[in-house]
Amino acid sequence: MIRFDNDYTEGCIPEILTALTNLNDEQTIGYGKDDHCLNAAKLIKQAIKHDDADIHFMVGGTQTNIAVITAILKHHQGAICAESGHINAHETGALEAVGHKCLTLPTSNGKITAEQVDTLIQNHYNDASAEHTVQPGIVYISFPTESGTLYSKQELTELYAVCQTHNIPLFIDGARLGYGLMAKNNDVTFEDIANLCDVFYIGGTKVGALFGECIVILNDLYKKDFRYSIKQHGGMLAKGRMLGIQFEELFKDNRYLTISKHAIDMADILTEGFQSKGYSFFFPAETNQLFPIFENTKLEELSQEFAFTPWIKIDETHTAVRFVTSFATKRKNVEYLLTKI
Amino acid sequence: MIRFDNDYTEGCIPEILTALTNLNDEQTIGYGKDDHCLNAAKLIKQAIKHDDADIHFMVGGTQTNIAVITAILKHHQGAICAESGHINAHETGALEAVGHKCLTLPTSNGKITAEQVDTLIQNHYNDASAEHTVQPGIVYISFPTESGTLYSKQELTELYAVCQTHNIPLFIDGARLGYGLMAKNNDVTFEDIANLCDVFYIGGTKVGALFGECIVILNDLYKKDFRYSIKQHGGMLAKGRMLGIQFEELFKDNRYLTISKHAIDMADILTEGFQSKGYSFFFPAETNQLFPIFENTKLEELSQEFAFTPWIKIDETHTAVRFVTSFATKRKNVEYLLTKI
Amino acid sequence: MIRFDNDYTEGCIPEILTALTNLNDEQTIGYGKDDHCLNAAKLIKQAIKHDDADIHFMVGGTQTNIAVITAILKHHQGAICAESGHINAHETGALEAVGHKCLTLPTSNGKITAEQVDTLIQNHYNDASAEHTVQPGIVYISFPTESGTLYSKQELTELYAVCQTHNIPLFIDGARLGYGLMAKNNDVTFEDIANLCDVFYIGGTKVGALFGECIVILNDLYKKDFRYSIKQHGGMLAKGRMLGIQFEELFKDNRYLTISKHAIDMADILTEGFQSKGYSFFFPAETNQLFPIFENTKLEELSQEFAFTPWIKIDETHTAVRFVTSFATKRKNVEYLLTKI
Amino acid sequence: MIRFDNDYTEGCIPEILTALTNLNDEQTIGYGKDDHCLNAAKLIKQAIKHDDADIHFMVGGTQTNIAVITAILKHHQGAICAESGHINAHETGALEAVGHKCLTLPTSNGKITAEQVDTLIQNHYNDASAEHTVQPGIVYISFPTESGTLYSKQELTELYAVCQTHNIPLFIDGARLGYGLMAKNNDVTFEDIANLCDVFYIGGTKVGALFGECIVILNDLYKKDFRYSIKQHGGMLAKGRMLGIQFEELFKDNRYLTISKHAIDMADILTEGFQSKGYSFFFPAETNQLFPIFENTKLEELSQEFAFTPWIKIDETHTAVRFVTSFATKRKNVEYLLTKI
Repeated sequence: MIRFDNDYTEGCIPEILTALTNLNDEQTIGYGKDDHCLNAAKLIKQAIKHDDADIHFMVGGTQTNIAVITAILKHHQGAICAESGHINAHETGALEAVGHKCLTLPTSNGKITAEQVDTLIQNHYNDASAEHTVQPGIVYISFPTESGTLYSKQELTELYAVCQTHNIPLFIDGARLGYGLMAKNNDVTFEDIANLCDVFYIGGTKVGALFGECIVILNDLYKKDFRYSIKQHGGMLAKGRMLGIQFEELFKDNRYLTISKHAIDMADILTEGFQSKGYSFFFPAETNQLFPIFENTKLEELSQEFAFTPWIKIDETHTAVRFVTSFATKRKNVEYLLTKI
Repeated sequence: MIRFDNDYTEGCIPEILTALTNLNDEQTIGYGKDDHCLNAAKLIKQAIKHDDADIHFMVGGTQTNIAVITAILKHHQGAICAESGHINAHETGALEAVGHKCLTLPTSNGKITAEQVDTLIQNHYNDASAEHTVQPGIVYISFPTESGTLYSKQELTELYAVCQTHNIPLFIDGARLGYGLMAKNNDVTFEDIANLCDVFYIGGTKVGALFGECIVILNDLYKKDFRYSIKQHGGMLAKGRMLGIQFEELFKDNRYLTISKHAIDMADILTEGFQSKGYSFFFPAETNQLFPIFENTKLEELSQEFAFTPWIKIDETHTAVRFVTSFATKRKNVEYLLTKI
Repeated sequence: MIRFDNDYTEGCIPEILTALTNLNDEQTIGYGKDDHCLNAAKLIKQAIKHDDADIHFMVGGTQTNIAVITAILKHHQGAICAESGHINAHETGALEAVGHKCLTLPTSNGKITAEQVDTLIQNHYNDASAEHTVQPGIVYISFPTESGTLYSKQELTELYAVCQTHNIPLFIDGARLGYGLMAKNNDVTFEDIANLCDVFYIGGTKVGALFGECIVILNDLYKKDFRYSIKQHGGMLAKGRMLGIQFEELFKDNRYLTISKHAIDMADILTEGFQSKGYSFFFPAETNQLFPIFENTKLEELSQEFAFTPWIKIDETHTAVRFVTSFATKRKNVEYLLTKI
Repeated sequence: MIRFDNDYTEGCIPEILTALTNLNDEQTIGYGKDDHCLNAAKLIKQAIKHDDADIHFMVGGTQTNIAVITAILKHHQGAICAESGHINAHETGALEAVGHKCLTLPTSNGKITAEQVDTLIQNHYNDASAEHTVQPGIVYISFPTESGTLYSKQELTELYAVCQTHNIPLFIDGARLGYGLMAKNNDVTFEDIANLCDVFYIGGTKVGALFGECIVILNDLYKKDFRYSIKQHGGMLAKGRMLGIQFEELFKDNRYLTISKHAIDMADILTEGFQSKGYSFFFPAETNQLFPIFENTKLEELSQEFAFTPWIKIDETHTAVRFVTSFATKRKNVEYLLTKI
């Protein structure tokens, strides 16, 4: 079975295992205060060109989202997000479990617009019974989105302008950030991301690490006491250096972007291959997540050799499915898959 | 600086890094459903001699405690625990953050007694205003305790009998379980633990793993839907096999207990060394956490070369401190420390 | 200003004030255990013909909904409801604040169908990643709905059958129950309501009381420990007899239904008056909440003398507004309003 | 049975029922924005001599405490309080249910000291692992306390000074505020209370109202968006004028203090009566709650005719019990009770 069902089917980039092995006997203090974490933070601040950012390392995406959002929201506030946003759709109500509602916006491609956000906020404050409803307290978007799509620099700029107008922070979930930054049609840089939001996170789990996400807090308002939030949500790793070492390796020699580029290259080969065979896509094919529409008979055939994820039934005989590439995807597997289409 | 400040100063047993490296390119499904997790679960069920236990792997202790306790408690219930219990003392209110109160019992050595638990529960139900107070819904203990002490088999048996009498589950936090099981005066086996509670967890982070804890659910009542709880509390690792591979290695060839034995041996050498120099202990020296009382002048001297943790001021000139050994503690460091006492 | 903006603009039925005055010096025990509460419960059990129901009195609707739903749900579960359901739309995230997500269904008239509920539940369990999403744990509907519409007996029967098939309880919010039961086209009785759900509540605040709601628990599974939930959510009134006395008066001599009938009669006069002038309705005019569509110029004129609630903009020159009648609506005011249309 | 078991055994002062009856047909807007609420707020601001205070009316004490505390605390913070504080002891974990821990201080008389608070806060920030514990975010005290005792003006001044030093707000639960203010040895005025805290509430339920509490927010920091918190915790009464009318009556002609004085007078007669018969008190007899210690045989005899509350067993033959007077206590009942001692 050759797996294309997600971007966490393999382990990590080999440099990480080498470093973990070499450093295994080193003694460090715990909870992310060791030199590897400090050095990784330095490398990341250089990469995003924001020396004054606060950097925190987390184990996984759900706890990252919860730690950030609860550190920012007051009890009567909620998080504006796309219906398909990860916090709304796939975290088993983790945000509600700690007290907050998702204020969802409809979306056809995983993205929300500045106009949608502006309207929601204006409608809230224009409602004579505003206090009977949840106050918008943060805007959450994913870059790339859960549908594999991208915000343009123009779209991000507009979104952030609306947020600033309404004095509400913007948080970008970058679980697959590298794959967005290296996408062919992307016009957003690492530095742009840091300039166009209050907090974002750099995904490691899906981009080269064994596990790990890196929170970047840019707005001073949200820096204080953040480590309490990490600990409260179970995100403070005792052997925190595991995260520091991994992000050190990911951000040495521009590796994070280089390995992301590989995943995009593999996705682009797949995209062209699917298109050349006449297949269309359910969402625009922009990053490492592809959602081609196949005949069910073809899918059954493919499923003998390949793992992929059913997404949505299109009609009686067709289904959109998800194929995903990653830093670890082998070109020979991509090419072999295309011979079977 | 030679570190004795905790049992998570180094990485992991070398076999884990070898396995992670060898298996790095293997493709597996995510979220703990891979073969390594299944095989590790099998090894653990053999070790505890409970074929029908449900096994789940988690990243860290706080999320483990929260996932277990919230899966069991109803909204109006709380967790009986020692004042010094980790959920009450050192998890930044993680349990309260998801809605539950700690019903604390006083303790001088980290332990609570069957009688204390029985009295608390009886007092609750004898109170005409019981419904104005939080109903006891689970009993939480640590083995070993946060003070490094141990329950005897007799004590555990009595505690569990009280729990069963009152139809309330017993949950054992085994963050340092191996160090308890291999302690010289311990009379409790792995199998005993499994027989004397409803749920427990086997600590990996402090006992040989890079990170990871293993939940063992014995009571059928609490098995259903547990994975929702894992996910809701941010505990479901995308690359779940990281945990499976680590626990496979820890439970091969009895390694979990062998490496625990090493930590206990190192602690015993320290204990004898301290005692032979006339030092006494703030808590009984039973496992890998030692709490000797030193003169402050001696501590200042030691702190030039050794890391340890101040615990409590005894008087103007003396302080109890914590020295901890682990699977990774080097005998030469122990011996060197003793030359300095 | 003559108010038609809601059904809580006046005080209560005069019998309640008389009783409160007559009984003012009586000494009773607190927290709803007094004889008035007991007697009111008896009258209600007779009215619904369910001797074995558990009856609890609450102050207001939000805390009633939260107390019921949290008493039933496990932490990983959420409440299926219409998007327009009160718990989702107008309780400032009270349900999320205690840990639970609303699993919303689209609706055009405030109602949800058995088929919608069935599909949502089936989709949940058919999802290979079900545990990454919130498990449906209760179905919440309002009778009448927030849009003033009614479920037929057939619709309720089908809904409850789906709930029972999936082993999930049905909870009916009856904030305006009387107005539903006495509606002209309604075919559901008090007894039917009790037969077709697991828990419901009988609204007092909007139907004749100064304040107060009455929870009726029919399913034995949810009876245990319910008073803890009342207290935890701030719903246990010290002078609980205030609620007992009010519901005694409301359920003497069939008063609850008689006063509800009055509100419906007043609404029917309004409906016919609006229709005879050619006005249409945004939602079907079935109970005491009417949503006629007026020209904005007419609304501006009416707003000089009458209070009503803007609901939704229909087009540049028309708006749907809400007019509400109640137990206290004066016929002369209704007739006067119609002279102004 | 003559009841002395609490201060909510009767209804309300007769003026309230008269007003409710006279105003029953008046139409008002809902949710506490009506003229009665506005007027009551004005009277209260005059009584406390703080024109710029924000005034909100609530139904009961538990929801009042929760609404205030959650409006102030961040997620990683908890409430410092006495072990016997109502939020810790008798609200079924309502505060934990919305996410926050009680940081309890030991007390022998219901009071906590400035020094205790100072030490707790200093210890928190001096702890190298502070972020592993809940951060103190508010100080909660009751005046009078749950044990019937009082803070002197000096004690309150010291407490508030410590709070201000540490930049942490002080919240005073005044469920029985009137009975404190009118106590013989009390040296604190209404105005003092308002000067010596950030938020307090004036209890109505136990002091003359059918139900109702009045929140007074003095610190501007906590005024914004408070009505969201009221609604989220089920505290926003649809017929909000019920609260406005009651507090109008309570604060006309200095009635709140006059009726409180009556309760204190009755308590003083009881206190002197008990003392003259040689009985001692478990807590100092300062307000309307008395905790005399009786022989069990005497208590059994008294319980034939009088209701009171067992508090704590003193020894095999003696028990401390609670006798409570209120605005409604009849002098003849007090005198009759004393004939039986």
